[in-house]
Amino acid sequence: MSVKETLNDAHSRWMDDDGPENGIIISSRVRVARNLLGIPFPHLLEKGKAEEVICAVQLALENSEMIELAGRLELCRMIELSPVERQILVDKHLISPAFMNDCQDKVVALREDEVVSIMVNEEDHLRIQCLLPGFQLENAWQTVNMADDGLEKTLDFAFSEKYGYLTVCPTNAGTGMRASVMLHLSGLVLTRQLNGVLEAIHKLGLTVRGLYGEGTEALGDLFQISNQITLGQAEEEIIKNLSSITTQILAQEHAARAAIYKGKKEMVEDRVWRAYGLGMNARIISAEEVMQLIADLRLGLDLDLLPPMPVRMLNELMVMTRPAYLIKLAGKELSQYQCDVYRANLLREKLHSA
Amino acid sequence: MSVKETLNDAHSRWMDDDGPENGIIISSRVRVARNLLGIPFPHLLEKGKAEEVICAVQLALENSEMIELAGRLELCRMIELSPVERQILVDKHLISPAFMNDCQDKVVALREDEVVSIMVNEEDHLRIQCLLPGFQLENAWQTVNMADDGLEKTLDFAFSEKYGYLTVCPTNAGTGMRASVMLHLSGLVLTRQLNGVLEAIHKLGLTVRGLYGEGTEALGDLFQISNQITLGQAEEEIIKNLSSITTQILAQEHAARAAIYKGKKEMVEDRVWRAYGLGMNARIISAEEVMQLIADLRLGLDLDLLPPMPVRMLNELMVMTRPAYLIKLAGKELSQYQCDVYRANLLREKLHSA
Repeated sequence: MSVKETLNDAHSRWMDDDGPENGIIISSRVRVARNLLGIPFPHLLEKGKAEEVICAVQLALENSEMIELAGRLELCRMIELSPVERQILVDKHLISPAFMNDCQDKVVALREDEVVSIMVNEEDHLRIQCLLPGFQLENAWQTVNMADDGLEKTLDFAFSEKYGYLTVCPTNAGTGMRASVMLHLSGLVLTRQLNGVLEAIHKLGLTVRGLYGEGTEALGDLFQISNQITLGQAEEEIIKNLSSITTQILAQEHAARAAIYKGKKEMVEDRVWRAYGLGMNARIISAEEVMQLIADLRLGLDLDLLPPMPVRMLNELMVMTRPAYLIKLAGKELSQYQCDVYRANLLREKLHSA
Repeated sequence: MSVKETLNDAHSRWMDDDGPENGIIISSRVRVARNLLGIPFPHLLEKGKAEEVICAVQLALENSEMIELAGRLELCRMIELSPVERQILVDKHLISPAFMNDCQDKVVALREDEVVSIMVNEEDHLRIQCLLPGFQLENAWQTVNMADDGLEKTLDFAFSEKYGYLTVCPTNAGTGMRASVMLHLSGLVLTRQLNGVLEAIHKLGLTVRGLYGEGTEALGDLFQISNQITLGQAEEEIIKNLSSITTQILAQEHAARAAIYKGKKEMVEDRVWRAYGLGMNARIISAEEVMQLIADLRLGLDLDLLPPMPVRMLNELMVMTRPAYLIKLAGKELSQYQCDVYRANLLREKLHSA
């Protein structure tokens, strides 16, 4: 399946509901930044040289040891995708929002299940990512590590004994690694404990972001928690640290959900059933509202309040109800109002079929 | 059926859906104020004298000509009703909110269908009311007039050639008549034309009030429009004037509904289906929210958007979802939170059964 084809399918492996703790942890992600030895960083590259990076990566991906270690990845030039298709890749968390801009020399490599993706000529020459459903930081790291090893069979990465992997932004130097989990924290939001938890997370050297990374708002009670430090800690240490804090937040969220359900049962039921009633009936739904509805439905499923429906469907809906996918589905430009109508129709259809 | 029994039934004749223009005009009401000749006004009455008024009314109600003209009315002393039962009479628009306070000497007379009711020892000795479904001002006036005639077979009302019927408050003198229609104006609210219409109504010497009369807020897009002037105009003139203005508002509301449905169809559908979805699913609903939900459901029925359900049920729900009736149903005191839960359960049950 080519990247073009993958865009027609809203599904990505990370949306499956077989991930550990998937009632609260949507997905786990690890990415490393790598740069090629002897080639200037992307923002300093002349036209011809950027192409050289792409060719080198293409060769590296075709190496049989790489394929054995990390699977077969398909290359796609960003320039060949329409703006809407690029946005879908962002919405599926396969490329960064920044990767959409000025994309002349930018290339993405994708494994068919979208678990492994590589951005070429983003801020660094390579950004190798693994994205898995549920709580699987260790697996995600192992997968990235294998892809990294596979690529090194062919490529020479810039590395210093003192600073580790060299990166454009010093905040990435060292391991070049950013690990994150996407958490659904409705319990902590509803019990007003979230701010306390977020403060504690900051003090532990972690960063909290919204659904679409840096600078984006927290929608639908979803929070991305990631390591801040990349230098002076081994990869395993970073993963272990993030995992351990995630385990604590997980316990707090479980406790908060149990507490609200015990204390004011009707309050949670009301929230969940209102989301169901609106999703099944509304005719106009904004991008923001749908994220909250999905969050509330997810909470309802986790608490066994709603008729069963696949978590996978809710995860897919997070992407399908974004404007880009709606425009793709409609096959034409849509105004915001038309998007809101399309979104409501799609949600209604999906919930009725579930 | 005694008044006590009537309280167990949320239904009143005015809730029926056979009234003309009942998609927009909920009910028509006419009341006249009367005082007995030679007896001080209620607020000046000594204990024994108040009882005299009650006895005189009781005798008048038992007069065969009165029964022939206005039907049989049952007397009930307010003191014999619990505060919750009194409130239900207010919620059904059968007595005024003021009639609940200090009710030692207050008596209500009710016809079984609740079309005719008489408050004894309210502000005036008698307040004779007729309340009918839909647009029936003329009928309501005829009914009040007959009851008035019937009572006059026995009672002498204070009347002056110059001032007409004498009343405690000079704003009621003359005809002593207040006529009103309860209008559901969602179309004018949604198209933001309401303020213009209300201003015009004021200029025409009419008054606009909320659902429960003077000083109450307009809930659920419901507005009570009544004559301001009682002196210097014949009863027929007052009725004709109010009817003619109501007919104009009716046309404007019809036009507004058609316009919104034509212009932004999804917007109205969204409003109506959201109300349906919430009514069918919510677990906690406030007294204010339910009025808006009922208004939106009524709009949906009028525009043929929803599965059919009786307008009568929606009218009954306006009374059944008030705190007093919920407490009566529960058979025990309810906190506001418990009321909100009961209300949501009741609405869900009614909508599912419809």
